[in-house]
Amino acid sequence: MFLNCCHETLYFSIVHFVFEILHEIAGIVKEVGSNVHHFKVGDHVGVGTYVNSCRDCEYCGMDMDVYCSKGSVRTFNSVDVDGTITKGGYSSYIVVHQRYCFRIPNDYPLAAAAPLLCAGITVYSPMMRHKMNQPGKSLGVIGLGGLGHLAVKFGKAFGLSVTVFSTSITKKDEALNKLGADKFVISSDEEQMKAMVNSLNFIIDTASGDHPFDPYMKLLKTGGTLVLVGVPSEVKLNPISLIMGMKSISGSATGGTKERQEMLDFCAAQKIYPEIEIIPIEYINEALERLIKGDVKYRFVIDIENSLK
Amino acid sequence: MFLNCCHETLYFSIVHFVFEILHEIAGIVKEVGSNVHHFKVGDHVGVGTYVNSCRDCEYCGMDMDVYCSKGSVRTFNSVDVDGTITKGGYSSYIVVHQRYCFRIPNDYPLAAAAPLLCAGITVYSPMMRHKMNQPGKSLGVIGLGGLGHLAVKFGKAFGLSVTVFSTSITKKDEALNKLGADKFVISSDEEQMKAMVNSLNFIIDTASGDHPFDPYMKLLKTGGTLVLVGVPSEVKLNPISLIMGMKSISGSATGGTKERQEMLDFCAAQKIYPEIEIIPIEYINEALERLIKGDVKYRFVIDIENSLK
Repeated sequence: MFLNCCHETLYFSIVHFVFEILHEIAGIVKEVGSNVHHFKVGDHVGVGTYVNSCRDCEYCGMDMDVYCSKGSVRTFNSVDVDGTITKGGYSSYIVVHQRYCFRIPNDYPLAAAAPLLCAGITVYSPMMRHKMNQPGKSLGVIGLGGLGHLAVKFGKAFGLSVTVFSTSITKKDEALNKLGADKFVISSDEEQMKAMVNSLNFIIDTASGDHPFDPYMKLLKTGGTLVLVGVPSEVKLNPISLIMGMKSISGSATGGTKERQEMLDFCAAQKIYPEIEIIPIEYINEALERLIKGDVKYRFVIDIENSLK
Repeated sequence: MFLNCCHETLYFSIVHFVFEILHEIAGIVKEVGSNVHHFKVGDHVGVGTYVNSCRDCEYCGMDMDVYCSKGSVRTFNSVDVDGTITKGGYSSYIVVHQRYCFRIPNDYPLAAAAPLLCAGITVYSPMMRHKMNQPGKSLGVIGLGGLGHLAVKFGKAFGLSVTVFSTSITKKDEALNKLGADKFVISSDEEQMKAMVNSLNFIIDTASGDHPFDPYMKLLKTGGTLVLVGVPSEVKLNPISLIMGMKSISGSATGGTKERQEMLDFCAAQKIYPEIEIIPIEYINEALERLIKGDVKYRFVIDIENSLK
């Protein structure tokens, strides 16, 4: 069942798979190669956004394969080193090198684990890098979707004061009462924004729609950072927004190999679960229409095990 | 000679004063208040960009009075707490609270010390904050003027590989042969820029003219930072320039109180001297015309002691 050239692969059945992203896969190990010592048949495992990298460069050496100098091979629709095109999770089984597999704790639901492997790590990684796991700090989260709702959950688990910024009042109840955010701000309300000036250590910006940055930079304390994880068409701001207060705007793309495992273990220990809607594969066209309208809280997860038999 | 309300002031004669900036002052202590214990008559001292702050807020508490929550009082043309307007260095003497005075080592020329108190600290502070004092790292410096030439000198003293980016080939000889930069790149030359992709840990951008940012972000390694210390009219870039490689663009405004003293001591120990042209005050109109044309290497320093008698 394995590629002959490699004894370090796992062969596992795909149980759940996140629809939007095409590369958040969770399943159960069915066979392991002769050099695989950290996984065994029956283990719950996940695969994230990439399934290969050079394993030799400076970044692979730091377990940051996602930033591999030669380019990491994405889990879906990328050309792998042997010339094949990666297929993501639209399959009953997948063969993956052990380096790119993550252990999902046995008591953690496989369906909930899947969205952690892209949405989760995308907010967890910059929070850890910027020391936002220190209780008492203040976090702003722009946009309450797949990434944003996990940023709120991580923020509360880290002991932060969390403020959600949204353009829609319809998100208020969910943000405060279901996800446990401390404050909710309508970003178009100047009075509400003014009340937040100089109050935040860190902002995670998950919004991919175009929006101004200067009003948010004002909300950061001196030395604060706004991290972009959404992709608007451009970033435009007044340099004074950065200079007065030695503030930063940074980007982040998912995260590294070691920190993905740390995040999974942290979520299991803290009982942090993404909000998901499990769907059969037959529902996928309707799910796509709902996705375009933003009508999902907050990720569709395809039940591959019961869909592809 | 002192304000009666305060026993913590120094009264000193101004010897040199930087023309462009109006708030880089160096001189000799003539009298000290009864509570001044760290300075004595005859000491060489300097004053930087601010002469007052609340001394009570979070940032003053961290010796970062420049970011004082209530606003620091600038050395020139600011309203002080008593309602008077600060006059900068256009004077033979100045009275300043000891908190805002810095000791200039006796063997360090007073005229050279003056530009360190704004231009110097403006590049030293972000370099230290971003750990760019570690030998072997790579530094880019955009623009070779008052700030840029000091960034090159600090970079070489820290053991960095330094590349100067300029729009003008006329700066090449100065950058490489006088200041000791390792490389010189004409920023409009696509081939030269391409050769630098993914090579820099850090860029100090001293250019205040409008310029694109995306081409420079490409030159940073993964995790690299571009720090703005110049003030163009806007910062505009593609979010992918930040996201792919978890890169940052930050700002920085001069620096703190403690680090100014550290910088002066470092410059004395390492024999780092700004390039200056000392002028009498009578030359000031001509100096202004030359300044507008960029015809100064790299700071005019007014000889106040011999000008205002």
